[in-house]
Amino acid sequence: MALIVHKYGGTSMGSTERIRNVAKRVAKWARAGHQMVVVPSAMSGETNRLLGLAKELSPTQTTDALLRELDMIASTGEQVSVGLLAIALQAEGVEAVSYAGWQVPVRTDSSYTKARIQSIDDARVRADLAAGRVVIVCGFQGVDDKGNITTLGRGGSDTSAVAVAAAMKADECLIFTDVDGVYTTDPRIVPEARRMATVSFEEMLEMASLGSKVLQIRSVEFAGKYRVPTRVLSSFTPWDIDIAEEARSGTLITFEEDEKMEQAVVAGIAFNRDEAKISVMGVPDKPGIAFQILGPVAEANIDIDVIIQNVSHDGKTDFSFTVHRNDYQRTLDLLNAKVVPATAATQVVGDPKICKVSIVGIGMRSHVGVASKMFRCLADEGINIQMITTSEIKTSVVIDEKYMELAVRALHKAFDLDQPAG
Amino acid sequence: MALIVHKYGGTSMGSTERIRNVAKRVAKWARAGHQMVVVPSAMSGETNRLLGLAKELSPTQTTDALLRELDMIASTGEQVSVGLLAIALQAEGVEAVSYAGWQVPVRTDSSYTKARIQSIDDARVRADLAAGRVVIVCGFQGVDDKGNITTLGRGGSDTSAVAVAAAMKADECLIFTDVDGVYTTDPRIVPEARRMATVSFEEMLEMASLGSKVLQIRSVEFAGKYRVPTRVLSSFTPWDIDIAEEARSGTLITFEEDEKMEQAVVAGIAFNRDEAKISVMGVPDKPGIAFQILGPVAEANIDIDVIIQNVSHDGKTDFSFTVHRNDYQRTLDLLNAKVVPATAATQVVGDPKICKVSIVGIGMRSHVGVASKMFRCLADEGINIQMITTSEIKTSVVIDEKYMELAVRALHKAFDLDQPAG
Repeated sequence: MALIVHKYGGTSMGSTERIRNVAKRVAKWARAGHQMVVVPSAMSGETNRLLGLAKELSPTQTTDALLRELDMIASTGEQVSVGLLAIALQAEGVEAVSYAGWQVPVRTDSSYTKARIQSIDDARVRADLAAGRVVIVCGFQGVDDKGNITTLGRGGSDTSAVAVAAAMKADECLIFTDVDGVYTTDPRIVPEARRMATVSFEEMLEMASLGSKVLQIRSVEFAGKYRVPTRVLSSFTPWDIDIAEEARSGTLITFEEDEKMEQAVVAGIAFNRDEAKISVMGVPDKPGIAFQILGPVAEANIDIDVIIQNVSHDGKTDFSFTVHRNDYQRTLDLLNAKVVPATAATQVVGDPKICKVSIVGIGMRSHVGVASKMFRCLADEGINIQMITTSEIKTSVVIDEKYMELAVRALHKAFDLDQPAG
Repeated sequence: MALIVHKYGGTSMGSTERIRNVAKRVAKWARAGHQMVVVPSAMSGETNRLLGLAKELSPTQTTDALLRELDMIASTGEQVSVGLLAIALQAEGVEAVSYAGWQVPVRTDSSYTKARIQSIDDARVRADLAAGRVVIVCGFQGVDDKGNITTLGRGGSDTSAVAVAAAMKADECLIFTDVDGVYTTDPRIVPEARRMATVSFEEMLEMASLGSKVLQIRSVEFAGKYRVPTRVLSSFTPWDIDIAEEARSGTLITFEEDEKMEQAVVAGIAFNRDEAKISVMGVPDKPGIAFQILGPVAEANIDIDVIIQNVSHDGKTDFSFTVHRNDYQRTLDLLNAKVVPATAATQVVGDPKICKVSIVGIGMRSHVGVASKMFRCLADEGINIQMITTSEIKTSVVIDEKYMELAVRALHKAFDLDQPAG
């Protein structure tokens, strides 16, 4: 008798046959006596189809008015999904009702196509649960305070699911996906990669932010902020797999540090080739310069990842950072138009063909020498390091994109991640 | 400088290319200085695609919970349309914003899949118009007082458009469709049928209710109730047709009777083959019997059209009515299960292979002999009349379905409808 949130991705919802399977799985959980809330994504391909139609008609300039309409259009994909899943559950003899984001409501800010959840009202959902219904809530979407439909951006359904679980104080949030858990690194690159039975919230956060596509980073942030026990597990098991076995499968994100004490120093290797590197050269090293450079970038709603400012030289310094590769050209244009004239920078240079590779692990906090072992390993492979950043639980390097697989494999081996945990 | 509502059907919205044409036509009207509200249908085929998916998953029993989900799903078709049209207008350099039914809001009752509009709030739309925006509102849908999405049933976009025009006190509502106006009868059956430049509201109401598919009947009721000048015109003209010419084209529904005085007695011939005939035989002729028979039918949300009760015979009477052909079997089952035992009727008989043919015309009110001319015409063709009903402006007969075309052609000729109006 628990309150459980299930999230199913677009592949799991990809056809009526698959939706029927999701319904049978959810029905199994409901019949076991659990109160069930389900957050499905749009049927796979649907969001792309809808945005493709929109693109054919779009003006060249991206305005807020345009983004608003994209959300209006894209949000329908999930609305179809929830309705179909509710019907499939009713066909299984399970009472079910679906809600769009605005009906719950899931309140967000007004940043169309990349909105952030502000609050979720649990009253309507809770009343349905009390009446014995399975409640199906649209992922990926919400409503702003003026009643405009917003979407959370790609992958936002994970965030929706965890946020709903937090608002409902759910006992567990199960993210059904096309992988059977979180691995020490991407098994497509390192076949020896191992699935972790548990991963600490902090590690998961770093893994997600560094490109492990298992969970969207904001969903991990939500899980951590509200301490939502969140499990990543496979949607490819037969729907009638034993429920006790299913409840133990995949990878559970934990919030207790102690239990990790005996585990490896480095939990996993993450990587990301979606980034581009930009350097603003020869800016005066004076108070406010970072804001002068990054303020306009942030204002343009461009996310900045790694930021590095090195010691100055003759009162001048070089300022480097990374952005998403899609924002590369826009950021360069912006810097040349606004920042170079304002800061008297000598030039702006960049490279979109880079990647970021990181070692992640709570254990690193108390172990010296982890970073140097990483640098040694890369040097042994002849890989030049372009940028370095460190935090308490990760060390990241930016390297030439072409060395990515080599670096990940070498590091995975160097930190004994192919060996079963101690 | 007028406030104009345009409605575009699914065919007009059938592809991005066609949506671009709709945008250009709307932009032409907006640039001429008009305040524009546009109500588009879903892209043609989309509603069927969505309901087809739902049908694959549906339980065998139709419940309110199921109908609610069908509306959740079907309503997305229009939401995509409004977003795409808004984007296409923005690409034309015209400011545009789209709204789902619940955002306006368009308030309806809770009769899922066949809801009725109760009220429309004009404040949000009016604010956008004042700010110079074209406003695009989802047809076919609304929201009930509990925040559930409802749809108005097939063809409901016409009703939405006229209702929005009424709420906005629009100067004219232009229904763009795949025919270029209202004809004296269906030109596919009678090639000599003529387009009417104007048609009275009452005639249009009868023509629509009798199966002329040009406009949904409820849209005509709305037009009449709120005296919304409504014009049916072709969406197949080039978008850049002269606006003054376009504003005069098609058929205008009028509310003034005087101007019709000189016109023909019979305005048009309507027909409908979607109906089925049912008779409850040998029921006691006593007060309350009509309610006893039709009460359960109405409760099951089955629309009844023609109702006939003839004089009684030995205290017993036969009670006949027509329903939509889709409801035929359900009505028979219901009558046999509930009504026959309660009323001691001897039997229930029916025939789904009938049709209804009607002559319609305001002029009939003051002209005797019109009905008898109709009966004579049908007799001359050897067509047996099964049921007759009359009202002030129409006379309808139920005949065998196979005689429908013959009856329509003969009546069209008998009432000189192939001759230009006097």
